[in-house]
Amino acid sequence: MCKINSPDDVKSLKSEEIPILCDEIREVIIDTVSKNGGHLASNLGVVELTVALHRVFNSPEDAIIFDVGHQSYTHKLLTGRYDKFSTLRTKDGLSGFMRPSESEHDAFVTGHSSNSISAAYGIFRAKRIKNENGTAIAVIGDGAMTGGMGYEALNNAASAKGNFIVILNDNKMSISRNVGAMARCFSLLRTRPKYHHFKLAINRFLFKIPYFGEHAYNILLRIKEYFKKLVYRNNVFMSLGYNYLGPVDGHNVEHLEELLKIAKEYNRPTVIHVITTKGKGYSYAENKPNSYHGVSPFDITKGADISAKNDFSSVAGLTLETLAESNDKICAVTAAMTEGTGLSVFAKKFKNRFFDVGIAEQHAVTFSAGLATGGLIPFFCVYSSFLQRGYDQIIHDAALANLTMKFLIDRAGIVGEDGESHQGVFDVSYLTGIPNMNVYSPSCYDELKYRITETSKNAELCAIRYPRGCENKNFEVDFSGNFTKLGTNGKKLIITYGRIFSNAYEAYLKSKKFDVIKLNKIFPIEQSLVETVIKYKKIHFFEEGIKSGGIAEHIGNLLLENGFKGEYKITAIGGEFVPAGTVIETLKSYGLDSEAFFDAFKEL
Amino acid sequence: MCKINSPDDVKSLKSEEIPILCDEIREVIIDTVSKNGGHLASNLGVVELTVALHRVFNSPEDAIIFDVGHQSYTHKLLTGRYDKFSTLRTKDGLSGFMRPSESEHDAFVTGHSSNSISAAYGIFRAKRIKNENGTAIAVIGDGAMTGGMGYEALNNAASAKGNFIVILNDNKMSISRNVGAMARCFSLLRTRPKYHHFKLAINRFLFKIPYFGEHAYNILLRIKEYFKKLVYRNNVFMSLGYNYLGPVDGHNVEHLEELLKIAKEYNRPTVIHVITTKGKGYSYAENKPNSYHGVSPFDITKGADISAKNDFSSVAGLTLETLAESNDKICAVTAAMTEGTGLSVFAKKFKNRFFDVGIAEQHAVTFSAGLATGGLIPFFCVYSSFLQRGYDQIIHDAALANLTMKFLIDRAGIVGEDGESHQGVFDVSYLTGIPNMNVYSPSCYDELKYRITETSKNAELCAIRYPRGCENKNFEVDFSGNFTKLGTNGKKLIITYGRIFSNAYEAYLKSKKFDVIKLNKIFPIEQSLVETVIKYKKIHFFEEGIKSGGIAEHIGNLLLENGFKGEYKITAIGGEFVPAGTVIETLKSYGLDSEAFFDAFKEL
Repeated sequence: MCKINSPDDVKSLKSEEIPILCDEIREVIIDTVSKNGGHLASNLGVVELTVALHRVFNSPEDAIIFDVGHQSYTHKLLTGRYDKFSTLRTKDGLSGFMRPSESEHDAFVTGHSSNSISAAYGIFRAKRIKNENGTAIAVIGDGAMTGGMGYEALNNAASAKGNFIVILNDNKMSISRNVGAMARCFSLLRTRPKYHHFKLAINRFLFKIPYFGEHAYNILLRIKEYFKKLVYRNNVFMSLGYNYLGPVDGHNVEHLEELLKIAKEYNRPTVIHVITTKGKGYSYAENKPNSYHGVSPFDITKGADISAKNDFSSVAGLTLETLAESNDKICAVTAAMTEGTGLSVFAKKFKNRFFDVGIAEQHAVTFSAGLATGGLIPFFCVYSSFLQRGYDQIIHDAALANLTMKFLIDRAGIVGEDGESHQGVFDVSYLTGIPNMNVYSPSCYDELKYRITETSKNAELCAIRYPRGCENKNFEVDFSGNFTKLGTNGKKLIITYGRIFSNAYEAYLKSKKFDVIKLNKIFPIEQSLVETVIKYKKIHFFEEGIKSGGIAEHIGNLLLENGFKGEYKITAIGGEFVPAGTVIETLKSYGLDSEAFFDAFKEL
Repeated sequence: MCKINSPDDVKSLKSEEIPILCDEIREVIIDTVSKNGGHLASNLGVVELTVALHRVFNSPEDAIIFDVGHQSYTHKLLTGRYDKFSTLRTKDGLSGFMRPSESEHDAFVTGHSSNSISAAYGIFRAKRIKNENGTAIAVIGDGAMTGGMGYEALNNAASAKGNFIVILNDNKMSISRNVGAMARCFSLLRTRPKYHHFKLAINRFLFKIPYFGEHAYNILLRIKEYFKKLVYRNNVFMSLGYNYLGPVDGHNVEHLEELLKIAKEYNRPTVIHVITTKGKGYSYAENKPNSYHGVSPFDITKGADISAKNDFSSVAGLTLETLAESNDKICAVTAAMTEGTGLSVFAKKFKNRFFDVGIAEQHAVTFSAGLATGGLIPFFCVYSSFLQRGYDQIIHDAALANLTMKFLIDRAGIVGEDGESHQGVFDVSYLTGIPNMNVYSPSCYDELKYRITETSKNAELCAIRYPRGCENKNFEVDFSGNFTKLGTNGKKLIITYGRIFSNAYEAYLKSKKFDVIKLNKIFPIEQSLVETVIKYKKIHFFEEGIKSGGIAEHIGNLLLENGFKGEYKITAIGGEFVPAGTVIETLKSYGLDSEAFFDAFKEL
């Protein structure tokens, strides 16, 4: 492994060296993920595929894009990043996804699902327009193919003139989740009778019965021709006009190379159907690939701790479950994040009211809006950064008719090691621009539980947003109103909401030189809040989210319009993407830790 | 027509009365659209289909959702809205799209493409959970089926237990635009040999050759069975698991009713493939359906004025064309809005650098990002409200890597008669929350041309947004800087940008009692602007967009943080959806007309 410094080194390996390389790669990945946490099962599944890709194609001349990018670890190891691999998912270290800023071999930003075909096709067309060499290859999982964006791109790229390549990495994830028709198509393909077998049968048949007249012979010929046409259109990719190769064993480098070479030489767009096993080579992960999708640091010999955690997600799931017991209108919707959003038990207990719609946030929002239109109370449980995909649907399909629907927004705020693409820092900014939307940001489990329960009883359209991970419950405050005020200073005020209220509280207890307002319902902003706040002389707003369009700006403006003449300062995330790092590190670097709260008015 | 007050009246008609009704409906539609403007060709295409739907199904028990909803005029006429139909697309009148607030027969909000299957499936599942009668039917065009959201929903809804129905209204729109593989699939289906013909042939064949032994007979049986299975999977809908009926002539009510009844009785999800002719029954529209998609008021006997207009869209298109002549890196991308965004000539002249990707804004953004990654300079030309679909892709695929790409955002601000779903009032709010994004808002053609030209030369990621329709050029100012200041009052200041600057200018000339700052680059906000503005005592910001997260808020906050002690007032669109009305009416109702500017400081 340590002698591989570039894809050229991979190409120069003898075929008997390949299995050794693959073993070494697996060892490095398991070792690093056991220390740093990260995506395990998906990476172990594509070791051979990635090796084959780098033996047949010439990155970066040929652009290879791994959809989502959580399975790009082997790619990183083979493209000169072996030495830095121990820094994976750490501050200033290697990203857990593809980042063009990290290497010329990372052709495009990845992190969100189903964008690889669009990006690869754009790069492919640019190459052709500029008469450059090389092609573009999108490697996309069957799970990601439930996302509509992948289909939009497949539909468009079918007209590619040249060897544009899509690799369907079929690890049966969409099957295990049973999320739709496409999964059944793939399943059928995997087991389909081979065309050439059938052709043989027909020929044998014609040969055996040579005497039955020209008419019948012609009919049979017609059957054969028609049949051939049909078989060649007998899957969704062929229907769309793609050359289809496969299915092929994704752990056989030789076979993979063979098909990749055919696709490379072919002058038409090709889909290669590759069957891989998630978690391949690490028995724990192979046996429970879903649980080993993303893991925290673990002991290699014992496997990861995959028991249910007590965190904001699990509290949300449990609360919904309790409510659903007594209210048969309550439904839960997820976009392929059943476990991540704490819905595993709900899913089993209320099969009829649980919907995993695939990696399809657009559909999830509007499907939920349909459920609401039909008189049910849908809770769409979704990660903050993934809900960005449903922005238009929230406006057009949920808010315009002011439907009774609820968004449970998990991973709101800083998410930590996943970095830029996964930070939940935009939701407050974009949700508060949408008419009819009510937004809550609980600071602890009890408040989350209370808020889900209360909003389930009213007709409002609302979003309840909460962070990844566990509460830091160092406070006991009443959170039943729209805001909670602490202290009697009367002159200096800190305003904040969500998880970082615990940092504010710590500083408040220590300092007692300022009052604190914790927002419970963060939007819309009530007049009573403005009337309370405007009496202060010095106000410092701390916000774990993007400043532009955040609550601090909304309140600042209301103060200004109402004639506030005091000092107002905002600490929030400026106009930049937040890089990877632990949550604690990141909060500190943006001045959102308890020390910064303590120092608030020293700086004013 | 005037005796039809509800779907029941449609059901009670004798079959010989149907053609008369259809004629009358066409007459009313043509007459009303000729007076009020609106969607013509699409409505004339679905008259018979809508009549058949209301004869077979029972709205509102059966929820019928017309995708986009611009073809719902017949539906409105048949569901008790004949008397109000003359108010179509006027202030407080009937909407040009489906609005649940307007009638219980409008099952869901429509306006944006490809959401109907998601919504209908949600309603369908709610009915089943609540054990209610009725089903849900989505009527979706082949154009709308290029949108990934439609596919997400098809994929998910294939598992429906019961008679969930999708009607593919195939008017060959995606074909005429030649936007992808799906269109070719539909085209093949239209001309495919019928299965039952073939079945007959096989049976005849078996019957005619009774003597050729059991072995051969068995092989033939196997061929037949296998063949049958194949035929039933021989299109993308069948591949996904749908029962497929059609194609059927969409102008034959009797045939339509037959298939609709079969689908209604069937206990599985069905796709009915209906072939319709856009513009049917009005020769002008039938001959040029694209030009008669949406029209302004016209003379029925002479047809609509479909000549190219001189407006912001055409200026944008022409400017791009000029630039593309001398810079072979410039590309234009559209999501099925070639004519609407003024790209018709560019499309013909630079075939290789023009991309119509279908109604697929998500893919359009990321495909453009791929082009940019490949070293080209893509301009994605798109309507403001439709770009909402690409919000996540702008963040994740364009902004994160800070790519050199340009968004030309047409229909920004108030759009007029299309109403709530089409208002371009959110883009400033959501774009200014995105790191690395630069936003411009030209006020006239020359400025638009200047801005496109300038930004084509630099590496920035930017959006240039401009309104629907024509300029009101009552001013000559220098717009080359980031902002333009008029007047020497020094105490009272109006700030604004975009189209309504002409209203400010009119008031400024008349009053001369205040200064005006016109923002040219509206975001990010430069320190020099804050330094200029903060010197004023009274500031009034007028913004043609949603207040929450708009520029007025961003500037207000910077003023506050920088110690501004004066008066600050914002006139913008509050937390509500902007209803239909003319642009002039609407601007007036929100206090954005020249009179309001003139009165600005009277109110402070």
